[in-house]
Amino acid sequence: MAIVRPNLVKKTTDALSSVGFPAMTMTECFGRGKQKGYFAANMPDVVDMEKVIKEGKEMGLYLKYIPKRLISIVVEDADVPLVVGVIMKINRTGKHGDGKIFVLPTEETIRIRTGETGDIAIGN
Amino acid sequence: MAIVRPNLVKKTTDALSSVGFPAMTMTECFGRGKQKGYFAANMPDVVDMEKVIKEGKEMGLYLKYIPKRLISIVVEDADVPLVVGVIMKINRTGKHGDGKIFVLPTEETIRIRTGETGDIAIGN
Amino acid sequence: MAIVRPNLVKKTTDALSSVGFPAMTMTECFGRGKQKGYFAANMPDVVDMEKVIKEGKEMGLYLKYIPKRLISIVVEDADVPLVVGVIMKINRTGKHGDGKIFVLPTEETIRIRTGETGDIAIGN
Repeated sequence: MAIVRPNLVKKTTDALSSVGFPAMTMTECFGRGKQKGYFAANMPDVVDMEKVIKEGKEMGLYLKYIPKRLISIVVEDADVPLVVGVIMKINRTGKHGDGKIFVLPTEETIRIRTGETGDIAIGN
Repeated sequence: MAIVRPNLVKKTTDALSSVGFPAMTMTECFGRGKQKGYFAANMPDVVDMEKVIKEGKEMGLYLKYIPKRLISIVVEDADVPLVVGVIMKINRTGKHGDGKIFVLPTEETIRIRTGETGDIAIGN
Repeated sequence: MAIVRPNLVKKTTDALSSVGFPAMTMTECFGRGKQKGYFAANMPDVVDMEKVIKEGKEMGLYLKYIPKRLISIVVEDADVPLVVGVIMKINRTGKHGDGKIFVLPTEETIRIRTGETGDIAIGN
């Protein structure tokens, strides 16, 4: 599960597809991180975050939640490093708000159309 | 967690409710699978998928993401086969785009209203 | 993962932030629980639920799905009781529809901006 910037979803899914992972699910969500939603998109090198948040509030610019996208993709264990690497490569701008990747265990996957399970169901 | 067609959500949750599982959460999402979003809803027996995608792109009909619904339901381990079976039964049309079911482990469930935990919190 | 009432999201995230957990993701979703969506918000002490649902249907007031919010927050194992406690404290009204908390295991967390992993990536 990767929380990323909305404008990088297409590039991310294109990249994942190009290396063999076309199947994914995308959900609209809202994120709040270290910067508490303030100017996440365009403040790359904040030194004094508390000061910035204070000023933002005073200017009425404080944003509590930032629109994000959740990309969910289920892959075999052996493919996790590759998929994480691709998501990192596309989404790492070095600015606050780049998002996070969470690797969760999955017990079983079933393809509804065929009833297939396991790695066959995971594979595209 | 089941990714299914939007038009089958009601039938699915009705069926789950009728066998004792009324509690669920539904989230709007977008999916992309093997067919890369092309004509997922109405192309039951595609033989040459690459050709279809190529033609679809040429006709401007290529859809990158297909609206889906994520149904999340937490059940006891012993009920997993039943719940998976019901979801399969309702959502299996045999066409591309039927979706997938992912079984994830859960460490704990807490009902906020009562503070109950474990199987009592899971039960409806 | 906590499914809560939409009107309590701000209070919940403010409380979590105040005790050191500003980072979270919020997703709009729809829930159905024991009460099957009927008058979840304003029927605190229903005795005969079946009767209420029957009457609600007759009056055309039956609501299948109730708007909810999913708050996702990843924390260290040691912090789970505190985070669960805060969410309980804010969201427990004692009425049907208070929601549930699900604790899921996470294998790895990666901060995309820095590439940090583990507890450092979880920490805010």
